[in-house]
Amino acid sequence: MNLTKLLKPKSVAVIGASEKEGFGGDVCRNTLSYVEDMSRVYFVHPKRESVFGVPCYKSISDIPDTIDMMVICTSQKTVIPLLKEGAAKGVGGAVVFASGYGEIGTDEGRKNEAELIAAAKELDIAVMGPNCAGFVNYIDNVQAFAFISAKRDRKGSVGVVSQSGQLCLSMMDAPGMRFSYSISAGNGKIVQMEDYMEFLVEDEDTKVVSVYIEGVKNAAKFADVLKKAAAKKKPVVILKAGRSAKGGAIAASHTGSLSGSDASFDAVLKKFGAIRVDDLEELIATSLMLATLDHYPKKAVFASMNLSGGETGICADVGSLNGIEYPDFAPETLAKLKEQLPSYASPNNPLDMTASLSYDADLYAGALSTVMDDPNIEMVLIGYTLLLEVADPAIHYMYQGIEKVVREKGENCKPIAMIPFAENTRNPEYQEKLFKIGVPILPPPVYAFKILRHLADFISYTSEGKTLELSAGAPAGKDTFALSEHDSKMELADFGVDIPKEVIAKTVEEAAAFAESANCPLAMKVESADILHKSDVGGVKLNICGKEAAIKAYEEIMSNVTGARPDAKINGILMVPMLKPGVEMIIGVNNDPQFGPMIMVGMGGVFVEVFKDVALYPAPLCEAEALDMLKSLKSYKLLNGYRGNAKCDIPALCKTIAGISRYASANKDTLKELDINPLFVYPEGEGVGVADALIVKHVK
Amino acid sequence: MNLTKLLKPKSVAVIGASEKEGFGGDVCRNTLSYVEDMSRVYFVHPKRESVFGVPCYKSISDIPDTIDMMVICTSQKTVIPLLKEGAAKGVGGAVVFASGYGEIGTDEGRKNEAELIAAAKELDIAVMGPNCAGFVNYIDNVQAFAFISAKRDRKGSVGVVSQSGQLCLSMMDAPGMRFSYSISAGNGKIVQMEDYMEFLVEDEDTKVVSVYIEGVKNAAKFADVLKKAAAKKKPVVILKAGRSAKGGAIAASHTGSLSGSDASFDAVLKKFGAIRVDDLEELIATSLMLATLDHYPKKAVFASMNLSGGETGICADVGSLNGIEYPDFAPETLAKLKEQLPSYASPNNPLDMTASLSYDADLYAGALSTVMDDPNIEMVLIGYTLLLEVADPAIHYMYQGIEKVVREKGENCKPIAMIPFAENTRNPEYQEKLFKIGVPILPPPVYAFKILRHLADFISYTSEGKTLELSAGAPAGKDTFALSEHDSKMELADFGVDIPKEVIAKTVEEAAAFAESANCPLAMKVESADILHKSDVGGVKLNICGKEAAIKAYEEIMSNVTGARPDAKINGILMVPMLKPGVEMIIGVNNDPQFGPMIMVGMGGVFVEVFKDVALYPAPLCEAEALDMLKSLKSYKLLNGYRGNAKCDIPALCKTIAGISRYASANKDTLKELDINPLFVYPEGEGVGVADALIVKHVK
Repeated sequence: MNLTKLLKPKSVAVIGASEKEGFGGDVCRNTLSYVEDMSRVYFVHPKRESVFGVPCYKSISDIPDTIDMMVICTSQKTVIPLLKEGAAKGVGGAVVFASGYGEIGTDEGRKNEAELIAAAKELDIAVMGPNCAGFVNYIDNVQAFAFISAKRDRKGSVGVVSQSGQLCLSMMDAPGMRFSYSISAGNGKIVQMEDYMEFLVEDEDTKVVSVYIEGVKNAAKFADVLKKAAAKKKPVVILKAGRSAKGGAIAASHTGSLSGSDASFDAVLKKFGAIRVDDLEELIATSLMLATLDHYPKKAVFASMNLSGGETGICADVGSLNGIEYPDFAPETLAKLKEQLPSYASPNNPLDMTASLSYDADLYAGALSTVMDDPNIEMVLIGYTLLLEVADPAIHYMYQGIEKVVREKGENCKPIAMIPFAENTRNPEYQEKLFKIGVPILPPPVYAFKILRHLADFISYTSEGKTLELSAGAPAGKDTFALSEHDSKMELADFGVDIPKEVIAKTVEEAAAFAESANCPLAMKVESADILHKSDVGGVKLNICGKEAAIKAYEEIMSNVTGARPDAKINGILMVPMLKPGVEMIIGVNNDPQFGPMIMVGMGGVFVEVFKDVALYPAPLCEAEALDMLKSLKSYKLLNGYRGNAKCDIPALCKTIAGISRYASANKDTLKELDINPLFVYPEGEGVGVADALIVKHVK
Repeated sequence: MNLTKLLKPKSVAVIGASEKEGFGGDVCRNTLSYVEDMSRVYFVHPKRESVFGVPCYKSISDIPDTIDMMVICTSQKTVIPLLKEGAAKGVGGAVVFASGYGEIGTDEGRKNEAELIAAAKELDIAVMGPNCAGFVNYIDNVQAFAFISAKRDRKGSVGVVSQSGQLCLSMMDAPGMRFSYSISAGNGKIVQMEDYMEFLVEDEDTKVVSVYIEGVKNAAKFADVLKKAAAKKKPVVILKAGRSAKGGAIAASHTGSLSGSDASFDAVLKKFGAIRVDDLEELIATSLMLATLDHYPKKAVFASMNLSGGETGICADVGSLNGIEYPDFAPETLAKLKEQLPSYASPNNPLDMTASLSYDADLYAGALSTVMDDPNIEMVLIGYTLLLEVADPAIHYMYQGIEKVVREKGENCKPIAMIPFAENTRNPEYQEKLFKIGVPILPPPVYAFKILRHLADFISYTSEGKTLELSAGAPAGKDTFALSEHDSKMELADFGVDIPKEVIAKTVEEAAAFAESANCPLAMKVESADILHKSDVGGVKLNICGKEAAIKAYEEIMSNVTGARPDAKINGILMVPMLKPGVEMIIGVNNDPQFGPMIMVGMGGVFVEVFKDVALYPAPLCEAEALDMLKSLKSYKLLNGYRGNAKCDIPALCKTIAGISRYASANKDTLKELDINPLFVYPEGEGVGVADALIVKHVK
């Protein structure tokens, strides 16, 4: 969907222009406060001659100009006729504030919504809303927003799209935030969240895309947008409720979005390198930091500079809790700092500069410059609590010192951020000054280092070698059926999963013959899609050697199973070579209703069950991605030569995971779930062994 | 040490009173801004007639009054003579700002410090400092603080003591913070941190004790203070650097405090129910919340009320990440809310009230009252982003609604806190109004729910049944020696640890005789304090049955060991019944240099090594505390009847842990470390088996 006429209109008509409180009045007020060039903004009201001194047209048809976008401030009943009238004037975008649609939960509401969607489609108008708060385009000065907020210059490079008007408004009110676009999309019934995200990812004026979303509607589009962002290395920062069961229920009930599994959502963002945050403050501060920095550090290696030992300790501790790397300073740096700092300071990273330097801009600049020049450092974090009322003159000198370094280093200046230790940082003068030289002020440490962790992950992410797609489009049917162990294994074998040779003995004679020819002990298991828990019904016999034992086992299994489950259709007895024991892994696939097959890997038994030590990643995936999954497990070290044990055959394991993911993607339209439990992993060069497999499919 | 004359003086002399910038000038300025009754505050300067219009005395001896406390604003060289002069006038407390002591790292500095400590002791004067920023007593209006901060009413109930002047100042500048005392204690060479903490714990005007500490100096006193606080149920909130290796090094270097293990520090706080925070913002906000609430909730069960779905989802998610419990509302509550909220709202906890209610005080009060009356709820969290510049009138109505509920419920009003979603909450008018009715404003969710977790832990803590003491006082010697397995076990047996019957065979005949009389298979191990890794030298034989096998094993072990370790003193061969296998646990003791023996418990093997799933707790401890340790393990469920396995003999395990803790406490003066690895835990009623034990002691 092309959103240019909606979001970057050349001409705008405000329908229902008014001087009263309400949508019409607020849009007119906002427009008059912010828009300098009113030459192609038209106010429309059937009964008014003028609004706030601006002449009014009786109807959109009366306007002597073509119109790209109309802001419809009038009630639900007027909307479709207005769209029709607008279409004739060239309208390609419209904002609809009115409620009375799906959100009211009545049949009439749903009918109104369906009619609006149909009309928008027929007239080819990109409609924002209904029941939304509208948007502001700060780049071209388009005001189509239904709420007034305190006036200030907000033009910048954060592109916001939010499904919540309240959160959008809070972002607009956040001191220091500067936007390219601020879009409060409401339920997004016509133009969807994914469409706005795409616009912002492609928009040249938008440096950071900042999103509050309650649920993904179009997973394929969502993936495609994130892929474009990854290619451009443009950060997409996403707040989505639903980490907890209660949060998920609220998100689902609130907009009626189909809420996929939250863990799947996380895994999708990880694949595409998008940033997920936990609350609004984190969304604001992460976006603000990413937008303010002139460029991002080349590597996630930080220096921390503070004015006291207590503050330095906090940065060391909270940084380390978030995995922030503070490399040791190089010997030259230490030697130079020893000259630049008071004799009682003991230079180190994090660095306690002592408070004395904060009262001399040149000394401060000197020490900052020394730290920045360190070859092990790519970003400098300045710890300082900037007070709302500047009682302490230190900030004057520190600012001058920072400004000097930024100016003198020019393009070679490494990124700098300021971290206050208490939330008292809204001194607008210095916030603005620091913003202008590309130095963001972060929130206090617990947030700040969480945000720097996002930065570290963002710059460490690479899309190279990743399969940047999803296999979205899972079936919704409720009826399912299981495949037998043998059938499950055979489906996987077709996708390169290494399955030991096995046969189904349909008669006791076949069993005897196979056992006689086998040169190893066998496992014998009842082969039936109806019996999932084979051991429970006496359907498994292990370590069978030779003809006699096989005959006995065959007869016992058959007798046990037909006794316990007379209803089950039995295909025979599966005869498999006994696998030698190895490290036990579990590989599972769950076909997420939104994002398609999600591959789960973990070490067997308590590792998965008690410690929840699992990795989740969307199919399809390649062997390198499988390796990344394994490396993210705490138990990875148990695979990798733990305590002198043999190193496991990790390449064979990765090949198996990738094969399973290919199977899952190829069967995304029928697969419900898949379990390999256990998979034995053997020492290097000896491969893996699938000990059991179960595939469950949807009935087509 | 009695701090009354220092911190609650009836008369004060400011030595070095001045109108210039610097200590003397700042103390005089602060005094004149804040102190109303100057009748017993005396300014002293040898050359001035008056300072800011206040008459000056030439010396402290000239003052026609007894003096409790002197604020010494003059240089290092003047301090001891002044203390002597003051002592004659009755001085019992003094603040010393001067530097030139231990902190400068020279011999002269150290000498000055020793002399000052000796003089203070001899004269019986409680000296704050040296090299400190002083204190303010807001209750009795005593100003002995060396820095100016913006003037406002700060009298309240948070008692602060900080080893960092910078952090103390930042707390004093935090909007909304109100103090009983604010003490910037510096290095605390004479009056120590633990003394100030004790004063604040005992002080009736202090409701919350808020501490920044770099290291504990007197562990026994520290424990005693925390015990007093636990008895009074007075919260002690502590920020201490050192969670990370780098943070620990900074804290240690900065004040020269002996930094014990950070994990031990955590365990000590846990035992006594003190609260540990990660940064200054968390310290401020936790203290402010605890001081503002009129009373604490009876149980940690919360309701969350918000104005939008997005905000509700954030509270659900971030609350749940912090283990906050949101019980479902009772049916009556839901029914009542359905009447009180708009038809499209779907009542639930967390609750999206929709924004409409925020514009009507009575409706808001009605819904708040309904939620508060719910029998499952003990505290209400109101989500609302209070803007710095109040553009949105909602807060007026919401405040009125809240005030009405607080007033009408009176003593039955359950605690309320407000949570903003973005940090933009410094609107001083409403912050003050809400403070006055006992409603704190917390920081945004990532901090807020961390802080509410602290509250939940604080109110859930009980000192009942806990051994509220430490066995501090570990030896510092470097030379150590190990006990043999048998000797280690025997020492433990004396403290009630169940040790299987075992003998040391000193000759092959003794070995043969014991094996003959034994009615079970035996393990035979070389018994020598010189050989810690017995298997490595062929010193272990397992499953020995009968005389012949014992003779063979004896000879082989002796031959192996004397070959491999001809130097080792061998006591004989330890002969132990083979233990049947059970669930493997590890119990360890490490004698912390500050806090004494710390008991460590974990499940054997990868659980400890890969997942770091261990519990740490200071000795002594009782069986109930041992059980709490076990319950804190993720692997606890493996002991407690996991997946149909037999339940382990947890009482026997607890008894063993408590016995080991008694042993460790009794041997705190010699013990270095102790390891039982593994301890087999058997099914209920079958006890435990110590399979190996190693005690290492300090040479006295």
